[in-house]
Amino acid sequence: MQFQLSDELIQKLEVLIQQQNDKELNLTLEDVHPADIAEIISELDLDEATYIIKLLDSGKTAEALMELEEGVRERILENLSAKEIAEELEEMDTDDAADIISELSEERQQKVIAQIIDEEHADNIVELLRYDEDSAGGLMAKELVKVNENWSVTGCMAEMRAQAENVTRVHSIYVVDGKNKLKGRLSLKDLITAPSDSHIQDIYIPKVDFVNVHTPAEEVAQIMQKYDLEAIPVVDEMNRLVGRITIDDIVDFIKDEAEKDYQMAAGISEDVEADDSIWRLTRARLPWLILALFGGFISVTVLGTFDAAMKEHAALFFFVPLIAAMAGNVGVQSSAIILQGLANKSLRGSLLKRLLKEITLSLFNGVVLAIILAVGGTFLLGFDWLFGITIGISLISVIVIASLIGTFVPIILDKQGIDPAMATGPFITTSNDICGILIYFSIAKLILGF
Amino acid sequence: MQFQLSDELIQKLEVLIQQQNDKELNLTLEDVHPADIAEIISELDLDEATYIIKLLDSGKTAEALMELEEGVRERILENLSAKEIAEELEEMDTDDAADIISELSEERQQKVIAQIIDEEHADNIVELLRYDEDSAGGLMAKELVKVNENWSVTGCMAEMRAQAENVTRVHSIYVVDGKNKLKGRLSLKDLITAPSDSHIQDIYIPKVDFVNVHTPAEEVAQIMQKYDLEAIPVVDEMNRLVGRITIDDIVDFIKDEAEKDYQMAAGISEDVEADDSIWRLTRARLPWLILALFGGFISVTVLGTFDAAMKEHAALFFFVPLIAAMAGNVGVQSSAIILQGLANKSLRGSLLKRLLKEITLSLFNGVVLAIILAVGGTFLLGFDWLFGITIGISLISVIVIASLIGTFVPIILDKQGIDPAMATGPFITTSNDICGILIYFSIAKLILGF
Repeated sequence: MQFQLSDELIQKLEVLIQQQNDKELNLTLEDVHPADIAEIISELDLDEATYIIKLLDSGKTAEALMELEEGVRERILENLSAKEIAEELEEMDTDDAADIISELSEERQQKVIAQIIDEEHADNIVELLRYDEDSAGGLMAKELVKVNENWSVTGCMAEMRAQAENVTRVHSIYVVDGKNKLKGRLSLKDLITAPSDSHIQDIYIPKVDFVNVHTPAEEVAQIMQKYDLEAIPVVDEMNRLVGRITIDDIVDFIKDEAEKDYQMAAGISEDVEADDSIWRLTRARLPWLILALFGGFISVTVLGTFDAAMKEHAALFFFVPLIAAMAGNVGVQSSAIILQGLANKSLRGSLLKRLLKEITLSLFNGVVLAIILAVGGTFLLGFDWLFGITIGISLISVIVIASLIGTFVPIILDKQGIDPAMATGPFITTSNDICGILIYFSIAKLILGF
Repeated sequence: MQFQLSDELIQKLEVLIQQQNDKELNLTLEDVHPADIAEIISELDLDEATYIIKLLDSGKTAEALMELEEGVRERILENLSAKEIAEELEEMDTDDAADIISELSEERQQKVIAQIIDEEHADNIVELLRYDEDSAGGLMAKELVKVNENWSVTGCMAEMRAQAENVTRVHSIYVVDGKNKLKGRLSLKDLITAPSDSHIQDIYIPKVDFVNVHTPAEEVAQIMQKYDLEAIPVVDEMNRLVGRITIDDIVDFIKDEAEKDYQMAAGISEDVEADDSIWRLTRARLPWLILALFGGFISVTVLGTFDAAMKEHAALFFFVPLIAAMAGNVGVQSSAIILQGLANKSLRGSLLKRLLKEITLSLFNGVVLAIILAVGGTFLLGFDWLFGITIGISLISVIVIASLIGTFVPIILDKQGIDPAMATGPFITTSNDICGILIYFSIAKLILGF
């Protein structure tokens, strides 16, 4: 039942666009969902994509524009006049319209807003543009259904019908007083099952979760997830109902956040995709690699200071990548677990308890690995026993230190108000490489003496 | 407005539980949301937690049980009788009840099901237990609102009211024919705004997205996200409407998947949290470390074969961790970007094009890094020029190869039907370490000759 994009369809559309066969184009795309139109548009070149956007009904293209990747959308919007963009925005919910308009230059924003015919819609968009992107105000839409606590159920049905026409999904009906202050909610289910002669005052639920326009987006996502909310009303400083946030916006936000943390851990500092330009990908990746390179310089210098070991204990140098890799892997594991705990706010208990736990855990892992290494080394590589002990003790120490760095650097950054995700990936592997090598050779020097 | 868990509250509850002061306990927890009750329970010891679960109304504790972490819930359920568990399940939606019951032993499952008084509810749970956890059948609930296409709007209102009583959120009203085959949907908004003398046949929307009971959960999540659906009906092989999936189940699924991929990339193979037991954490982490250790053995052996270089070109060995780290970092970056593309199904275009792009990108990054390395090395560490060229060319080669491995190993695994997330983290860093060192010394041997 799902739409499948095919090369044949793309070729057919390209031919129809060349022939300017608008009738056949409209017919072909008539039953295609806007999200699929967006997929088709991503496959066409810019002129063809613009042609389709201009041709189709703006009710459909508005939604397709929303689904496009930002880069593609930007280029198409550049090809449209202010009036054409305004027509698309008229069809969108205020939150989507504000998102799109914020991608334009300020000069262009004004021109586009001036072309929006529905003045209330324009006003709402301008209001939403004021809020920070990562706050409840930046996520909310102005579309919602609200009723006055003083109305009767029958009396407000007509009013609600009118309001519902402009709202894609009703979810909840919010109840306000004469000053637009949020009092509670009415669920649609309650409405269906309520006797028609009752009053709003008698049937509304005075308990309602809400957020303030300045509540950070992350907190909104947490509240909505924790309490399984599908929509949450947003109030201003005076407790007046100014908008609402729906779960689909939060789904996108949660996905973006998860991807951002993952990318950060992989040493990618911007939200990039495989199909982005080489320049954009380089900008996201190169800074981390340069950081790692400087870390590498330090490890070269550290190794250089131990060159006295080279004569008698050359084999020590063969184990450097093994030790460095173990330090890096353990550090990344520890930091990933702590980061997810921080993100979910599920870390409880004292730092001391966590310290003891991390030491026990890494000590245990370290001993198991050291035994494998010692046994493997003796049989496969034929170490003498003192060398085996040196490598084993070093491995255990490196693993314990690496896991402590991986655990506590993110916690400390978080306490300082710095994004702890910075401390994963290249940062943790590089610093653990250096520490690991330093510990390894220091222990070797102590035991073997050189 | 958000509930804040405090040590004082926990202490107060502990005292009240000790005093068996049920009245005061009920009063204290009366206005607390089930999700917050779950947080409180996680802080109490097992006996106290069980006491609270037994004391409070099962309408409230059923939801709290759902919110608990699996480990905590399992231990509490062990303390409850089959009858007590059945009472909790009666209060849950069928999908939640089936999830909980599937955590019990088979023997216990039968005892609990036998104690459920509502036979239809029990039947539904038993039906849901048949489906694979990661399929639409495993995600769906039996609770939904449906109407027959032959009914009149007024005629079906009473029926709908009755159905809606059992459904937490109505979302959509599904339209079926006399054989329960899915025909379309009625939105609640349409219902509010429809004239009351019309027939279902005249007003329902015949176009409706749906999935089959066997559709994989991942595909369900993609469809619901792409088309911004808040609920999707599920049909069986005969196109009969058997359940529906709501967006809140999908939110949990998306979050779990993102966390799983992230953990896999960090070398953690089970879904663990910072507060899990040391044994569980070890089981998730140690296997990857052992894999990395064996990779380390290989790198030791590779380095050992180049020991002839030690006499004249000892400094080559100092650069091993730098080269290995760069190979690892580049590999992780490339694989992370490809993995997200695979997960979002956003990878388009031919493999050849991707190959050329990845080579261009990594060549460019490699040259920039090699220049930094050569300039830095000459001024800071005082290389001779031939050594500088050796290191520079090696770095470029290693980066290009590492990025190709990082890009194509996940793609190949995915084509083979293996989870490409396997090929990130420790796996990619370990294999890139080995390849990197091999390339580095081979080039050095070629240029410097030893």
